[in-house]
Amino acid sequence: MAKSKFEYVRDFETDDACLPNCWIVVRLDGRNFHRFAEQHEFKKPNDDRALHLMTKCAQTVMQELEDIAIAYGQSDEYSFVFRKKSRWFKRRASKFMTHVVSQFASSYVFYWKDYFKDQELLYPPGFDGRIVLYPSNQNLKDYLSWRQADCHINNLYNTVFWMLVQRSGLTPVQAQDRLQGTLAGDKNEILFSEFNINYNNEPLMYRKGTVLIWQKVNEVITKKIKLPKETEEKEVEVTRSRTQVVPLHCDIIGDQFWEEYPEILAEDS
Amino acid sequence: MAKSKFEYVRDFETDDACLPNCWIVVRLDGRNFHRFAEQHEFKKPNDDRALHLMTKCAQTVMQELEDIAIAYGQSDEYSFVFRKKSRWFKRRASKFMTHVVSQFASSYVFYWKDYFKDQELLYPPGFDGRIVLYPSNQNLKDYLSWRQADCHINNLYNTVFWMLVQRSGLTPVQAQDRLQGTLAGDKNEILFSEFNINYNNEPLMYRKGTVLIWQKVNEVITKKIKLPKETEEKEVEVTRSRTQVVPLHCDIIGDQFWEEYPEILAEDS
Amino acid sequence: MAKSKFEYVRDFETDDACLPNCWIVVRLDGRNFHRFAEQHEFKKPNDDRALHLMTKCAQTVMQELEDIAIAYGQSDEYSFVFRKKSRWFKRRASKFMTHVVSQFASSYVFYWKDYFKDQELLYPPGFDGRIVLYPSNQNLKDYLSWRQADCHINNLYNTVFWMLVQRSGLTPVQAQDRLQGTLAGDKNEILFSEFNINYNNEPLMYRKGTVLIWQKVNEVITKKIKLPKETEEKEVEVTRSRTQVVPLHCDIIGDQFWEEYPEILAEDS
Amino acid sequence: MAKSKFEYVRDFETDDACLPNCWIVVRLDGRNFHRFAEQHEFKKPNDDRALHLMTKCAQTVMQELEDIAIAYGQSDEYSFVFRKKSRWFKRRASKFMTHVVSQFASSYVFYWKDYFKDQELLYPPGFDGRIVLYPSNQNLKDYLSWRQADCHINNLYNTVFWMLVQRSGLTPVQAQDRLQGTLAGDKNEILFSEFNINYNNEPLMYRKGTVLIWQKVNEVITKKIKLPKETEEKEVEVTRSRTQVVPLHCDIIGDQFWEEYPEILAEDS
Repeated sequence: MAKSKFEYVRDFETDDACLPNCWIVVRLDGRNFHRFAEQHEFKKPNDDRALHLMTKCAQTVMQELEDIAIAYGQSDEYSFVFRKKSRWFKRRASKFMTHVVSQFASSYVFYWKDYFKDQELLYPPGFDGRIVLYPSNQNLKDYLSWRQADCHINNLYNTVFWMLVQRSGLTPVQAQDRLQGTLAGDKNEILFSEFNINYNNEPLMYRKGTVLIWQKVNEVITKKIKLPKETEEKEVEVTRSRTQVVPLHCDIIGDQFWEEYPEILAEDS
Repeated sequence: MAKSKFEYVRDFETDDACLPNCWIVVRLDGRNFHRFAEQHEFKKPNDDRALHLMTKCAQTVMQELEDIAIAYGQSDEYSFVFRKKSRWFKRRASKFMTHVVSQFASSYVFYWKDYFKDQELLYPPGFDGRIVLYPSNQNLKDYLSWRQADCHINNLYNTVFWMLVQRSGLTPVQAQDRLQGTLAGDKNEILFSEFNINYNNEPLMYRKGTVLIWQKVNEVITKKIKLPKETEEKEVEVTRSRTQVVPLHCDIIGDQFWEEYPEILAEDS
Repeated sequence: MAKSKFEYVRDFETDDACLPNCWIVVRLDGRNFHRFAEQHEFKKPNDDRALHLMTKCAQTVMQELEDIAIAYGQSDEYSFVFRKKSRWFKRRASKFMTHVVSQFASSYVFYWKDYFKDQELLYPPGFDGRIVLYPSNQNLKDYLSWRQADCHINNLYNTVFWMLVQRSGLTPVQAQDRLQGTLAGDKNEILFSEFNINYNNEPLMYRKGTVLIWQKVNEVITKKIKLPKETEEKEVEVTRSRTQVVPLHCDIIGDQFWEEYPEILAEDS
Repeated sequence: MAKSKFEYVRDFETDDACLPNCWIVVRLDGRNFHRFAEQHEFKKPNDDRALHLMTKCAQTVMQELEDIAIAYGQSDEYSFVFRKKSRWFKRRASKFMTHVVSQFASSYVFYWKDYFKDQELLYPPGFDGRIVLYPSNQNLKDYLSWRQADCHINNLYNTVFWMLVQRSGLTPVQAQDRLQGTLAGDKNEILFSEFNINYNNEPLMYRKGTVLIWQKVNEVITKKIKLPKETEEKEVEVTRSRTQVVPLHCDIIGDQFWEEYPEILAEDS
């Protein structure tokens, strides 16, 4: 069983290193999540349990893998942005993609019960992923804006659609017909006039999706210590600074977000 | 929030279609499984629960995805071979890789308790994957032979190593020193003379790994039927033919396996 | 001027090695050769000088570069097939492409006057190239068949078209209208009934294009030698065997060609 | 001869579009130019005829192809920089590479006699090319600096080396030994003390290489016109503005060049 005789097959592997000095984005999507959502009775148009589980998985990915500067998620998708200068696994595209989706997928099952309680997970879900490079900061911001604009458009549509179905008793086909050709303003108007809903008061998480960034947080923890010359332990409060992944539900299309968190894009040319 | 203004970012996605008429192999490996095995108290040198769970996950991958002709696994790795002529997802490499590893990873957590019972899963594991193309049948067979030869070499080493540690009380470093520079024959001899073990009698699953192929199996199922003119139901046995994923623990380096299952490689030129 | 400070830019080069064990085809085409042909008064529908010059350049490419097993040319294009097992320049795609087109282009100007005599070359022509991999012999044969079928279709069309223009006095637009929707049989019929031309008697080089292969040829050369004990030189004929690039104008779609020259495809699996 | 039956082979072509919003650099090098230079009796260490011919070919490339913002050449190499936003041939890498090297190669033979006069060209030379992407302006400037620093280092070495050989009568091996381990300062010192040469007075073209940029130039041309009401033609001078490729021999490592010609890098983010 001379292994060496077969080792030539390694030469068939190709180098898939990502171009240096570009932002590396890995986006994943749930596979057949339309069916998955139905079978697991997701609340429509938004299921808080499902959205929070997605975000928990994304946080796990950011903590377990290296060099992720920011992530953005909505519905059954999440995008992870690796730093321009990352040298993780020699920037090999396959490593980035497979580590992200496998960590996300295993986390999804692992943390399921924390969010879905007694709603049982019926089968292990799949996710697909892709990788895209963005050379400039503007390109990256435009990518994230594209996803957030997509979130807005879909959520506005879904909000009206499900109101028409759930409250007005339309069939899905009737609701679809009703919305055919309507503009954003029309949909806002239907929500307001027929259901007394001001879309702008809908939860930010639904309208804006979820942004994950690294933030320094101060934790106050209580420690027991025994001072020299004293005989008894004493409780003291200690403030500790830690970097952790924080979810935000804010606009990332305008400049304000990037001005507030300049460190996300900060890398020398 | 004009989405269209940002849609140009889609042009940055690259086409990663695999060359037609080549076997597409996706191999995955557990991430940091050395540590994972320790923390979950895997039995050394082989843990049946872990090996069977790996195979269960691989079976799930073969059933859920399309066009996988054969899979081969050992230790914490599994290789999946997609058909030369597969047109699944336009042969996009990222689709193949991410679907395989995400389905595998979610299955690993989902089926964990079926194999590890009350040994709790402490955290969600990660897997990495890569994709390699093989133009000819011989190249593919050599790839699989390479992995099986690797299984043999590692398992022989590990079997002796852990005997020296577990039975002779050597420290890992001492065991490693003892085996430094030994050939296969030497290791067989140590096993036989010191531990009365004939390596060739070790379980096939440890020595050969696991091959997964599609096989037609006949199932006999019992049905209750009520014939016309009769008043009572009657039980009848029905034989049903189904294609399912079957695990084998056999040699795939020699010709015999390929002669026995010619359909695996059978595709017109 | 510390060069080292800038050397990081080399990391931006990507590895473009071709998959092993595949036929590597580089096809080049003249750039804007429609205009080039007009300005250099190429005879229509076929200009022997231009076709022979193309073949001379292709022969030079085969002789100067390594591992080219066969080449096929027609009109202003030529395809070069590198051996499956070639290790030339580590199979880097850019090396194959640029060496082929630059050698071809410089040869085109260099040998121009040998074929075009006092027809002066007005400007240096450009060529573009592409690279394609073919995993199996059948794929490669089908590629070459595709090019030869293309030659046939174009040449039949062009032969009739230019007869209509040159002999019947139709304008190009009229000739085009006349041929609109005609099948091969119709075109043969026009040639025969209107111009008394049997297409099958047209020169093979026009109908089949040019195949270049390596052939052992015996050369008889005359040497002057002086034998010991003799006082005068004497002429003797010596037969010398050499491998050279030979042009053929034959069918390569059927099996006969490949049976006659089995060595072209002969490489172990 | 149904062409359609073979057309499937087109699916084996891969998409090699360059990532958008990156500078695309194609660098070409003479193939075996050491030998070529000897056989054509190039003057050492620099042959003006050869350098000017290289630059003529590079100018032709810039004029014939599209979107080249700047080129830089030294010795037997030339780099061409395509604009970040170029959409030429859908940014296909093979198109950029093959058009550049084929146009350069044919021009080399075409213009040879304008520079080498009665020194005959013995055979058609080859060139190889590669393509590299640079995401940021700084990366691109560093690439060009790398090439110019390389020019400086090689030219200083060659200048001393050939002085030692040509004037001091050392053999090439002796000259090489003499220079082994010397720093730039040592080489300058040898030139000055032994050959009375101040390296900084050597021609800029040798020390800095050649930069090609687009420049508006004003041409004064003489036209004959006949004004209404006049009976005779009259000569008038007309100033016409044209954009043409201009060679410079200046430093491009420092900021001054880029400040003087900001339009080269000017493209919106």
